[in-house]
Amino acid sequence: MPAISPVTIRRARRDDVEIIVRMLADDPLGGARERIEDPLPPSYFRAFEALEHDPHIQLVVAEGGDGIVVGCLQLCILPGLSSQGASRGLIEDVRVASHCRSRGIGEQVVQWAVAEARHKGCKLVELLTHNTRVDAQRFYQRLGFQPSHVGMTLRF
Amino acid sequence: MPAISPVTIRRARRDDVEIIVRMLADDPLGGARERIEDPLPPSYFRAFEALEHDPHIQLVVAEGGDGIVVGCLQLCILPGLSSQGASRGLIEDVRVASHCRSRGIGEQVVQWAVAEARHKGCKLVELLTHNTRVDAQRFYQRLGFQPSHVGMTLRF
Repeated sequence: MPAISPVTIRRARRDDVEIIVRMLADDPLGGARERIEDPLPPSYFRAFEALEHDPHIQLVVAEGGDGIVVGCLQLCILPGLSSQGASRGLIEDVRVASHCRSRGIGEQVVQWAVAEARHKGCKLVELLTHNTRVDAQRFYQRLGFQPSHVGMTLRF
Repeated sequence: MPAISPVTIRRARRDDVEIIVRMLADDPLGGARERIEDPLPPSYFRAFEALEHDPHIQLVVAEGGDGIVVGCLQLCILPGLSSQGASRGLIEDVRVASHCRSRGIGEQVVQWAVAEARHKGCKLVELLTHNTRVDAQRFYQRLGFQPSHVGMTLRF
């Protein structure tokens, strides 16, 4: 079993956008959805600005000891009336750089998000993972998540 | 087949909180999670205030011709880098008052949310529905949603 690589979790900056988009694209599902060009299409930077100014959203990256970004995750803390007005945490866009997998990086990033959601008063953390991502489902179950729901999507 | 009841969709107001919470509680899953007291626990009103001031969240109600609230839904429009920086719409807390079901009210509320998400530039609308809500899954499929994902949850 490979050694665990400890990472630092920090908020993403504008100069991380390219490496994040590359991680999103380096994936059987994401590959078809992203556009990797030099420079990147401006829509990515517009989205980053919207994220940066949203007080409920944290896009974070995991940085290795050498300062290289090796993972990312987006956490939204969403207020709502249900469960006695408890907020919910929504985890999205979890990725670990393909050459750094199986070193516990995904676990550190997700555990950070779970702790952060709890700290912000959430009673529930939720996420959708594609039916084909069987390894991801096993990974989340190991971290205590239950496959309790059907995740339904409508794409335009 | 019962007639369709046309409804008006409008933003929820503070004086709708009680009827919304009653709808959330009138449900096999929600019943165990809510606290119906007179007056309602203040946590519901604190959550409503957080919602009201959030520019990305719309908690809406469906009002029948007689001005009575018969349904609700919460729509969050979430910016994100994936899919070329397209926002995503997240639908939560969809309910129709138990005495008003099978009249097309849920469909009108969900179609409103889909149209609103599209209008706000989303390329995807997503939701989680509990594994046991088989009727809901059929309902969403009829509206074009695909059961493409596993919805995973962690409750504290």
